[in-house]
Amino acid sequence: MIDPAESFQGKNTLITGGLGFIGSNLAHRLLALGAKVKVVDAALQGTGANEFNLRDIRSAVEIQNADLRDPGVALAMIEGQDYLFNLAGLVSHVDSMESPQIDLEVNAACQLSIVQACLKHNPGIKIVYAGTRQIYGRSQYLPVDEKHPIVPVDFNGVTKRAGEMYHLVSYRAYGLHTTSLRMINTYGPRMHCRDGRLNFLGEWIRRLFDHQPLQVFGTGEQIRDLNFVDDVADALLLAASDEKSAGQIYNLGSPEPIRLLDLAQLMIEVFDSGSYELCPFPAERKRIDIGDYHGDYSKIQSQLGWQPKVSLREGLARTFEYYRQHREHYW
Amino acid sequence: MIDPAESFQGKNTLITGGLGFIGSNLAHRLLALGAKVKVVDAALQGTGANEFNLRDIRSAVEIQNADLRDPGVALAMIEGQDYLFNLAGLVSHVDSMESPQIDLEVNAACQLSIVQACLKHNPGIKIVYAGTRQIYGRSQYLPVDEKHPIVPVDFNGVTKRAGEMYHLVSYRAYGLHTTSLRMINTYGPRMHCRDGRLNFLGEWIRRLFDHQPLQVFGTGEQIRDLNFVDDVADALLLAASDEKSAGQIYNLGSPEPIRLLDLAQLMIEVFDSGSYELCPFPAERKRIDIGDYHGDYSKIQSQLGWQPKVSLREGLARTFEYYRQHREHYW
Repeated sequence: MIDPAESFQGKNTLITGGLGFIGSNLAHRLLALGAKVKVVDAALQGTGANEFNLRDIRSAVEIQNADLRDPGVALAMIEGQDYLFNLAGLVSHVDSMESPQIDLEVNAACQLSIVQACLKHNPGIKIVYAGTRQIYGRSQYLPVDEKHPIVPVDFNGVTKRAGEMYHLVSYRAYGLHTTSLRMINTYGPRMHCRDGRLNFLGEWIRRLFDHQPLQVFGTGEQIRDLNFVDDVADALLLAASDEKSAGQIYNLGSPEPIRLLDLAQLMIEVFDSGSYELCPFPAERKRIDIGDYHGDYSKIQSQLGWQPKVSLREGLARTFEYYRQHREHYW
Repeated sequence: MIDPAESFQGKNTLITGGLGFIGSNLAHRLLALGAKVKVVDAALQGTGANEFNLRDIRSAVEIQNADLRDPGVALAMIEGQDYLFNLAGLVSHVDSMESPQIDLEVNAACQLSIVQACLKHNPGIKIVYAGTRQIYGRSQYLPVDEKHPIVPVDFNGVTKRAGEMYHLVSYRAYGLHTTSLRMINTYGPRMHCRDGRLNFLGEWIRRLFDHQPLQVFGTGEQIRDLNFVDDVADALLLAASDEKSAGQIYNLGSPEPIRLLDLAQLMIEVFDSGSYELCPFPAERKRIDIGDYHGDYSKIQSQLGWQPKVSLREGLARTFEYYRQHREHYW
């Protein structure tokens, strides 16, 4: 197994979407590993971009507020970089149904600009793309492996898949070193909590702190799996530093799939107060709901040696601890 | 089996890309079936749009020269239509690698505009989308059925798949009546022959007439399947008129898969003169070549009763006959 500590010392690393939840946690990790870290973020509305996410490392990180829809931006930022963690994107399924054009611009047109800039000006760069399990749609079997058909239920699934394919075609046609990690629900410090448009977990965290009941849609029997953000950062680092990952797609996953009802109860137990209520599915969510999901992550486990280290109980405790200190910046 | 003759009498039908090869042949058929036919085409460079294709029915068809990248255009043209044959698109694999941004605009952004216009202003319309077997990439088994993994080898495969998914998500989320036909190499009267960027067959036809050898890339052992354009028009009409096709994807295919070498020999035989030569693969084609392809069309055969009626030998003869009369408009 590769030791990422050796891969990133003194290296130039670029994070798109680096003001967001996963990107900012990764920036902290890369800095600790001795990397030079540059962050590009357009801070678009409807993303988790939050300047507070980098406030403690602001002087050590180069932060560029720029919109990758401008073709010149991709070109300028790619130059001289050893690694690109390509996390910029719109992830709201509900928003994509209401505003699909911007979803397409950001998740496909921008990704194409980025990939083209790399092909032309930095073909030796190593790229990890933030894919998503959302593109599988309603699971035809569980756990879902990488061979599962791609049948997205929403427009965001269309564009995230297009962005992923731009990377993989560039590998197959030109040998560009790209890897896609298909992420599951990620949670932890620095996540967006203002509403549930990006991730229902953020809203649940806010509701716990605000003494409001957690809203569980439908029967609450739906199965989901969750990753603590540090485990996702591990996966990003491993994928970037291991040659075996070139051109590969890897599912992330968790050994603790859980029904939403049980997750609500666990969160209340770990938080030590709170309540939940079953609510009818809002129509705009029901029509794009994926039902049960549980990812098979044996491929990344066997090829790159990745597995989640943080249990759900521990991860939730660490998450609550963060928001006890900093929630005024996330509400 | 549905009789399309009854479905289209007096109906309002719209063909995007209607100046092109397949669209113009379909326009002729629809008119003969008693439909009112409207054609929208931007006549973009790098497409098969050719005004001569509709010259004999020009007075009976409403032709609008408009670019669907303008959001107002999609809205205006959709109103009052019963059927939409959505054939507009860029299909050149080689061009998509050189100019991927316009490929994305036309094949994904335009398609999204069209689908949104239908959802908002004409949700009862029936749509058939021109999909392509190109999205499968290199075949993992033969014949390729609809369950084959989608692993495109070029940027055009990315965008054609995105356009298809926009249609299918709109069916699943909102019930929009959409069907995708994944087409194979189509040939016949009215096809683009100026060069081989859209379809190698057009160039081969031109070379036969111009006494130039057919250029067969590589070993010539690659298997392809071909449909005569009238058979493709049949499939479009069946898919539009049969309720069973809502939300479905169908492969087209042929009972006569053939090696390119044998195809070249057959063309020379039917044309009654000519020669071919084996050429090394140009690099820009080799890197995106799909190897052997042969499609399994049993799904559309059993569900909609479609099968090709025109043999390769007969289709080639009819094609040559057309260009004997009209080739000055296609060279």
